[in-house]
Amino acid sequence: MSETTLFIHDLEAAVSPARSGPLRGKSLGDLEVHSPASVAISGDRILAVGKPEDVLREHPPGPECVSVDGRGKVAMPGLVDCHTHACFLGDRAREFELRSAGASYEELHAAGGGILSTVSATREGSEDELAAVAERHFGWMLEHGTMTAEAKSGYGLDRDTEMKMLRAIARAAENTPLDVSPTFLAHTPDREFEDAGAYTEYVINEILPEAAKHARAADIFLERGSFEVPEARRYFEAAREYGLALRMHGDQFTERGAIPLAVEVGAKSVDHLEATGDEGAKTLAKSDVAAVLLPACALFLDLPLPPARTLVEEGAIVALATDFNPGSSFCESLPLVMSLACMRLKMSPAESLSACTANAAHVLGMSGEVGRISPGYRADILVLDAPDWRYVAYHLGGDRFAARVKSGELL
Amino acid sequence: MSETTLFIHDLEAAVSPARSGPLRGKSLGDLEVHSPASVAISGDRILAVGKPEDVLREHPPGPECVSVDGRGKVAMPGLVDCHTHACFLGDRAREFELRSAGASYEELHAAGGGILSTVSATREGSEDELAAVAERHFGWMLEHGTMTAEAKSGYGLDRDTEMKMLRAIARAAENTPLDVSPTFLAHTPDREFEDAGAYTEYVINEILPEAAKHARAADIFLERGSFEVPEARRYFEAAREYGLALRMHGDQFTERGAIPLAVEVGAKSVDHLEATGDEGAKTLAKSDVAAVLLPACALFLDLPLPPARTLVEEGAIVALATDFNPGSSFCESLPLVMSLACMRLKMSPAESLSACTANAAHVLGMSGEVGRISPGYRADILVLDAPDWRYVAYHLGGDRFAARVKSGELL
Repeated sequence: MSETTLFIHDLEAAVSPARSGPLRGKSLGDLEVHSPASVAISGDRILAVGKPEDVLREHPPGPECVSVDGRGKVAMPGLVDCHTHACFLGDRAREFELRSAGASYEELHAAGGGILSTVSATREGSEDELAAVAERHFGWMLEHGTMTAEAKSGYGLDRDTEMKMLRAIARAAENTPLDVSPTFLAHTPDREFEDAGAYTEYVINEILPEAAKHARAADIFLERGSFEVPEARRYFEAAREYGLALRMHGDQFTERGAIPLAVEVGAKSVDHLEATGDEGAKTLAKSDVAAVLLPACALFLDLPLPPARTLVEEGAIVALATDFNPGSSFCESLPLVMSLACMRLKMSPAESLSACTANAAHVLGMSGEVGRISPGYRADILVLDAPDWRYVAYHLGGDRFAARVKSGELL
Repeated sequence: MSETTLFIHDLEAAVSPARSGPLRGKSLGDLEVHSPASVAISGDRILAVGKPEDVLREHPPGPECVSVDGRGKVAMPGLVDCHTHACFLGDRAREFELRSAGASYEELHAAGGGILSTVSATREGSEDELAAVAERHFGWMLEHGTMTAEAKSGYGLDRDTEMKMLRAIARAAENTPLDVSPTFLAHTPDREFEDAGAYTEYVINEILPEAAKHARAADIFLERGSFEVPEARRYFEAAREYGLALRMHGDQFTERGAIPLAVEVGAKSVDHLEATGDEGAKTLAKSDVAAVLLPACALFLDLPLPPARTLVEEGAIVALATDFNPGSSFCESLPLVMSLACMRLKMSPAESLSACTANAAHVLGMSGEVGRISPGYRADILVLDAPDWRYVAYHLGGDRFAARVKSGELL
C-alpha cells in the first residue's frame, strides 16, 4: 500500500464533480460531497477521500507526512483553465482606456491596434523575455487556484515568432508547478500576405509541421476580419493529420458557420459563443463538441452574453475559462469567472465548478487525470479559507485559499 | 524641517486626482502625474512628491528611514471605500445560489430571507464575535488597497443590536490600521412594529440619541418594502440635530423620491441609483449631493446599471464604492469596482480613480486629509506591482501591490 505523504484532515467538506467529464445537462450540477472529510495523498496522487475516521484508519499519516488542518474549511479540486493566451509581451492598457471611452474592440483591431499591437511587441521580444512573462502569468494563475492551464501561441503570426512562443511556453512550463497544455493558434492573417487564403496555406505548409511537435491542439479564430469557414476547414484538415485536437474561437462577434464546421470536423470545442443564436446552441448541444464560455471576456469587452442556460439545458458539454490575454480579458482568475457565470450566465455554483474542473479537463483531454478529488487523480487540491465551498463564486474577487496542493506538494 | 521616515524612490510615476474633492464634470478625470517620481514621508504625513532628484535633495532619507524601491512601478493614493456594510454575522451563500437559479433579491427579502436572515445571525452573535468579523473584513479591504472605509450598522434593527454593532465597529477600528468611519443605518423596519412609521419613531427616539455618539453619519434605505419619503424626512430631520452627515440608499430598485428628498435635506450622498432616470440624474448633477455608484452590487444582483455617463457629464459629484455586504455585494475590492466602472459604466480609468479616492473622501468628510499623494495628506499610498497605474482597473481581479503604506507605516 502507498504511503501517505500529505494529509488534509477534518475538513468541513470535500467537494468535486460527481463524475469525470464530459458532463452534460443535469449531471453538470451533480456534486460528490464528503462532509466532514479528510484527504490522503501519496506522492502526486490522491489515495483516498472520505470520512475522517475512515481515511485516518486506512491511510494513517506517517512521521514524515505533511499535515494540513482543514477544520472550518472546505476542499475542492484544483481549477483547470482550458482557454488562455498566457504568453505575450506588451500590454493594452491604453486600449482599455479607449474602450472605456466607447471605442469597440473590432474598431481598434481594424485600425491596427488590438491583436496586432501585441504581435508587434511579441515579435520584438526575445524568447527569454517571453518565457519569463509566461512563467509570471502561470504564477498569477496558481495564486487564483488554477493548477492546469492551456496556453496558446498566436501573437507571432510568422513562423519564427510562433515557434519562439511555443518554445517559451515549454520553457515556462518546466519552471512552474502548473501543468501546461500548449496550443498552436492561427489568430489572424498576417497583413504581409495577399489574403487570408494565402496566409492559411503558409500556416499549413510552413508553421504547422513544426508547431505540431510542441502543441497538443490547433486553434483558429473564425471571425469577420480574421478567418472564414473555407480557411478554417483547410486548417483543421491539416492539423488533424498531425493528431492535434481541434479548437475554435467562434461566434464571438458574429455567427458565421463556426458550429456547423466544428461538428463537421469533430472539433474538441468552440469557444466564445457570445453571438450564438438558438439554433446554433441546440446544434452544439446535440454534438460532442464542447461549448467553452468566457464570461470575463464578455465583461471586459461589454459584449452580449453567451446562451449559457440554453446550452446547459439542451445538454451541451459546457466548460468555463478565463480567456486570459492582454486585450480582451486581462483576467487570470477562474474564481472570478465562476462568480460571473453565477451572476450573469445564471449557472449554479455547482455547474460553474464542474465547468472549470471536470469539463475543462475533458476539453484538454485530461479527464480522469485532473478535475476531481478522487482516488487515482492527480493531487491538485484547493483548501478554501471559507466554511462553504460556494464562497469560491459567492465571494466576488475575494478568493482566498488556506492551502494549495499541486501534484501532492503544498505550495 | 520634518525628518523623512519612509522614502519611496524612483517610481515610474505617482498618480493622484489633480485636486481634492468634490470633483465634478471634466475635472473628475484630471490627474496630477509625476513621472518619474519619489515620495518622502514623515510620520503619518506626506512631505513631498516630485522628481526623484528634487525629493532626494530636499528630504534626504536618514539612516533610520524605511526605503521602498519603486523602480518599474507606480504609486497611487490608498483607496477610500465610502459605502460598506462591513459588520455582520452569517453568510448568504445559499441565497446566492438561489439567485443564480432565478430568484430575485426582492422576492428573497419578502420571504424573510435577505437582510432579515443577516439580522437574525447578527442578533444571535456576541459583540466579541462581531468585532472579530469586522476586523477580518477590514483586513480583506486592506489587502485590496482600501485604507479608509465607512462601516454601517443596520443588521440589528433593535436598539441593543444596533448599539452592539456600533461598539463592535469601534473596537475593530482600534485593531486595524484602516481608518474607519462609522455610520448608523436605518436599514429596514423591524417586523415587530405595526408599520414603518411606528418603527421610524422608535429609531428616532430610542436608537438615534445613543447611536449619534458613535456614528459620523446617518443612512436610511428608501425603497419599496423598507422606508418611504415621509419616514426618511422625519429621520433626517432628527439625525441632523445630532450633527450627523446624511446618507441615503436610493433608487436601487425603484425611483420613489430619493433624489428630491436628498436635495431638500442637504444630504451628503444618494447611493445606488440603478433605477434613476434622466430627470433624476440631472437634478442630482445640479446639486451638492454626491452620487455614490456601486457597480459590484449591480453585477451581484444582475441589476440595470446606474446612469454614470449622464451623471459625470452633467456635473454630479460621482463616487464609487463596493457596497460590501453578505447579500447583495460580497465584494470588498475597490480595484474590481474600478474595473467594472470602466467596463460597464464607461467611466475612464482616471475618473474611476478620482471617484474612489478624492470624491469618496469628500463623501466621508475627509477631503484634504486622504485620497491624494500630496504634501500634508495622510501617507496612505499604494505601490502597484505594474508599470502603468491603469493596471489597477485594467487587470481584472488581478490587483497586486508591491507595497502598501498606511499612515506612513509599511504594511
